[in-house]
Amino acid sequence: MGDHEVVIETPRHNAKLSDLQVEEMENILWAYRERIRDMKTDSRFRYAMVFKNYGTAAGASLEHSHSQLIALPIVPKRVFEEMEGARNYYNYRDRCIFCDIIRQEIREEIRIIEENGEIIALAPFASRFPFETWILPKDHRPSFEEMGDYKALAQILLSILNRMDRILDNPPYNFVIHTSHFRESYNEYYHWHLEIMPKLTKVAGFEWGTGFYINPTLPEDAAKSFREVPL
Amino acid sequence: MGDHEVVIETPRHNAKLSDLQVEEMENILWAYRERIRDMKTDSRFRYAMVFKNYGTAAGASLEHSHSQLIALPIVPKRVFEEMEGARNYYNYRDRCIFCDIIRQEIREEIRIIEENGEIIALAPFASRFPFETWILPKDHRPSFEEMGDYKALAQILLSILNRMDRILDNPPYNFVIHTSHFRESYNEYYHWHLEIMPKLTKVAGFEWGTGFYINPTLPEDAAKSFREVPL
Repeated sequence: MGDHEVVIETPRHNAKLSDLQVEEMENILWAYRERIRDMKTDSRFRYAMVFKNYGTAAGASLEHSHSQLIALPIVPKRVFEEMEGARNYYNYRDRCIFCDIIRQEIREEIRIIEENGEIIALAPFASRFPFETWILPKDHRPSFEEMGDYKALAQILLSILNRMDRILDNPPYNFVIHTSHFRESYNEYYHWHLEIMPKLTKVAGFEWGTGFYINPTLPEDAAKSFREVPL
Repeated sequence: MGDHEVVIETPRHNAKLSDLQVEEMENILWAYRERIRDMKTDSRFRYAMVFKNYGTAAGASLEHSHSQLIALPIVPKRVFEEMEGARNYYNYRDRCIFCDIIRQEIREEIRIIEENGEIIALAPFASRFPFETWILPKDHRPSFEEMGDYKALAQILLSILNRMDRILDNPPYNFVIHTSHFRESYNEYYHWHLEIMPKLTKVAGFEWGTGFYINPTLPEDAAKSFREVPL
């Protein structure tokens, strides 16, 4: 039992997400927000996830630029693990782990790709994939759909997708938005974020067997390349 | 810190694993056993995993038929989760969950692909991938490398790979062997098994974001097709 919706990102058949204007991207993010808020009114659901598959190697089966929303009656395994980890950290330190990561990354600078007043994009310390990028609100915001404004996010997301196109030659990629679960839209320990995973390497037996990931690209090198690309 | 070894499965450059004779397969399984037993003598290691990538879509980067062994200083995430689940089940029921699954599958028959005196191959109830196949010893055996004989396993593994070649037209696949960790080679709750994952579908945003898998093929249908293929 669940719900599945497709967001058609643009009326132009040949445009890809990275070709859009900031206002168009903002509208897409507002559509995600409105649809998640509607899904939340259905008491059967516990969680909503936004994801995008771009390029056949990333699992896209339609050409026209689109993303997807899914509502689930349970919290997904990966989100549950993140939430449990964040909750344990909070119980120990009395601080949100994502807020602490952002503070540390701003201090160290080397893994930051871009930031504006509200949003930051960085190459995570334990990146699973080459050029994996996380986009987060700088302030403590548990739920994506509770943001009052999406302009700062639209700007950074578009910029990252364009940097990816330039450096990696229009690569296949997935992105997912991890937000809090419906029962606890506000909490002290979770912090919504958007994970972008370019699909440059193959996930093989080692990864399937262990749940560990072999990544030949240092996040510091990925962030540096991203920063230096002329836009 | 770890160890990585490549097992060259045959001197013939153009042979694939499914082309080999039972005795050749037996020798490969003995090689796994001997190498794992050697890795166990190194006190820095806690775990050894065997895996194989066949075909570029499954991540193989070499043509010549081979598989790989890796020794790790920790128990991998996926194995740890299985072990914890199996331990919880054991604490609750006083029985190995894998033994219970085998008993239930033998009773229901519909997901069994093949069995001989010692080994069983089945399509798991919660298969993540189309035609996913698990091969297990019928008796309670925690560790792959503690088996005294590999002939029954060699026969079944070869047979499954040949069935896969026939039905799925020589598909890319991964297999992994999950065995107990070094500190506890014998225990009541874990049961070694070999997981074969043909790579027919793409893992995309939904799977990456949730940790859940969309599988369009029922395991009962996969098992039936496997059983009916003429060898």
